[in-house]
Amino acid sequence: MMSVTSPVKDFVERVTAVLGVTEAPLALHEPAFSGNELAYVRECLDTGWVSTAGKFVDEFESRLAELSGARHAIAVVNGTAGLHAALHVSGVLAGDEVLVPTVSFVATANAVSQCGAVPHFVDCAPDTYGMSPAALAEHLRQVAEPAGGGFRNRHTGRRLAAIVPMHVFGHPVDIEPLLDLAARYRMPVVEDAAEALGARIGDRSAGTFGVAGVLSFNGNKIITTGGGGAVLTNDADVARRLKHLTTTAKAAHRWDFVHDEVAFNYRMPNLNAALGCAQLERLPEILRRKKGLADAYAHAFADAPDFRFVDEVRGRSSNNWLNAIELSASMSGRRDEFLEAAREAGYQCRPVWRLLHRLKPYAACPRMGLSVAESLEQRIINLPSSPQLFREVA
Amino acid sequence: MMSVTSPVKDFVERVTAVLGVTEAPLALHEPAFSGNELAYVRECLDTGWVSTAGKFVDEFESRLAELSGARHAIAVVNGTAGLHAALHVSGVLAGDEVLVPTVSFVATANAVSQCGAVPHFVDCAPDTYGMSPAALAEHLRQVAEPAGGGFRNRHTGRRLAAIVPMHVFGHPVDIEPLLDLAARYRMPVVEDAAEALGARIGDRSAGTFGVAGVLSFNGNKIITTGGGGAVLTNDADVARRLKHLTTTAKAAHRWDFVHDEVAFNYRMPNLNAALGCAQLERLPEILRRKKGLADAYAHAFADAPDFRFVDEVRGRSSNNWLNAIELSASMSGRRDEFLEAAREAGYQCRPVWRLLHRLKPYAACPRMGLSVAESLEQRIINLPSSPQLFREVA
Ligand SMILES: Cc1ncc(COP(=O)(O)O)c(C=O)c1O
Ligand SMILES: Cc1ncc(COP(=O)(O)O)c(C=O)c1O
Repeated sequence: MMSVTSPVKDFVERVTAVLGVTEAPLALHEPAFSGNELAYVRECLDTGWVSTAGKFVDEFESRLAELSGARHAIAVVNGTAGLHAALHVSGVLAGDEVLVPTVSFVATANAVSQCGAVPHFVDCAPDTYGMSPAALAEHLRQVAEPAGGGFRNRHTGRRLAAIVPMHVFGHPVDIEPLLDLAARYRMPVVEDAAEALGARIGDRSAGTFGVAGVLSFNGNKIITTGGGGAVLTNDADVARRLKHLTTTAKAAHRWDFVHDEVAFNYRMPNLNAALGCAQLERLPEILRRKKGLADAYAHAFADAPDFRFVDEVRGRSSNNWLNAIELSASMSGRRDEFLEAAREAGYQCRPVWRLLHRLKPYAACPRMGLSVAESLEQRIINLPSSPQLFREVA
Repeated sequence: MMSVTSPVKDFVERVTAVLGVTEAPLALHEPAFSGNELAYVRECLDTGWVSTAGKFVDEFESRLAELSGARHAIAVVNGTAGLHAALHVSGVLAGDEVLVPTVSFVATANAVSQCGAVPHFVDCAPDTYGMSPAALAEHLRQVAEPAGGGFRNRHTGRRLAAIVPMHVFGHPVDIEPLLDLAARYRMPVVEDAAEALGARIGDRSAGTFGVAGVLSFNGNKIITTGGGGAVLTNDADVARRLKHLTTTAKAAHRWDFVHDEVAFNYRMPNLNAALGCAQLERLPEILRRKKGLADAYAHAFADAPDFRFVDEVRGRSSNNWLNAIELSASMSGRRDEFLEAAREAGYQCRPVWRLLHRLKPYAACPRMGLSVAESLEQRIINLPSSPQLFREVA
């Protein structure tokens, strides 16, 4: 009997070639704290500065600004809070519409809702799944009409208030044409760079192209602060407004409590920033290992007819946050077999997020045709991507 | 020449009698981490569980529930987030009005704004500065009119959606008549118990009387998690909704990302919960010291005609979070002299918060007559209150 390797078996073998045979389940991401993490956290406890004051928040912000090349970085309590604050400061108001990708984590849409605005869903590009500039251009041509110095959706009457491209899995989106569109339609760009710390477009960091760019330091991200986020911006006024609004808008006074606008408590505690400072010191090493692991996956899946390793594209370097395999169209409908088999072999794999326009709370929102995203939704498999999984070759 | 002691000098002498002569400035509050704080935080780092998963959040929630006697406790990212979530789950909607005290930290009003609702300010009682049931009863009699199964403000037309009493400085508010009013006017009560962990009304904990009660673990609170909060509730449905809404409303699935409502990332990271677990172990000792310090202040100011130590009232035991002296009416206008002199002597003192209805963002909101609060605003001085400041008597 001739043995024909099934695609599922083939897939597991290729993953095994990269990760090795495993006993314990290999997580999708796991942080590691092999540097100064404990030392800095201990310093926080020793000095008592764990909360709203202390040096680590300032330090974390200036290190983030330095390494991303942004003029300012404002640490916040998590990425969702950062997106909300950034949209708010960019002028998004209740009743507005905000263009967001349907391929994203739900936080992108929730942050829009938290402004009282409505997400308007945009299709993705087939290469790295970021917001498609071509699709958006065509769609805006059809639905946007001038109104009050800006543009509105001619069908809903709502103001088109911002564009929020997301750098999917750490692969930078095709930002330049999106910036052009934003300028043409007089909307600010807020980058959802939650997954993209360390990714670059040309020689500039992802998250530094829009009015603001938002990072996340959740436990599954490139670096973690437990929970946390930051907003990058090159605009001093935006930075000042962000800092003010995320820290209860308190006016400086030696003792009086004067708060001059409605505001949020989105402050990152010093304890979490301490962890972040130590993690940032290790970022180059983390990125190096992430790249090594991605290279290994790319190699293992290079000649596979049924699979495409989702790779960065020329000129836009990924931080390789979360590796992904795209199943060929002929495999559509069989995704869960791959996920099951990988899990059985000890590799935690995961599908892409349910497309946002298909979630109950967002099903009635405005959208363009989303055929690219829809054709991909059942065909994306994320692979274990912790930097520790990279095996150095001697 | 006969020496007449000035009230300012008298004040500083009485504070000195309690705190001793100091070189370094004594802070208003300072946390201390003399228990298992470092051990638990280290365990987080060692295991890698610093973020959304890990045992400390569950542990912290169940210890909080146990010690407060609430059926459920939901850990959140801070007190402001907890208030917002609790109001939301209690049914506060955009365009509603929420009755809040004018004597509070700005977060109470900001949480209302975050629901898209409008604060409606209530005067305080003269004893412990909590929301005045008598004033509220009289006011509601005048402004509330039945509408749609509940009540609305006859002047603004807005629905009266909730009452948010706050336990000022850790002194429990006179909750029973407020609960009666809430029942009569069909509004839920959400307690702002940010300052009140460990305070009790009869044999029940502050924060367990309303539909929900919100604690804060900011660095200046009774215990700290760096930043953090929790919502207490006895209602299983409210608890389930709160947990769901504060953690992106993700439906349980082995790998799929389905989120069934618009929701928040208000999750407390495991790292912060680890700190909280260690702090909670020390709560009895912290409360004992806080009480000792408060007793000492009460004693030092007992015979002073110009000063009233703001004490708990019978049946409502304070956690003595933040000690306060009320200047007699004859001292009105001289508050800053006291603050200056105390600071010069090395004691960080502070006035009460600017009344919320006098802050720019809330100046146009509906309110009742607020004469009690207004007469007190310039006469309250908070004193250093860290538990470490209590000096044991042999
Ligand atoms: C694309 C995207 N946006 C936003 C967020 C929200 O970040 P956080 O979890 O820190 O709130 C995340 C990560 O969770 C994300 O992946
Ligand atoms: C009365 C009151 N409400 C709400 C809060 C808000 O809590 P947090 O600072 O944890 O957001 C605080 C404390 O800061 C407070 O004192």
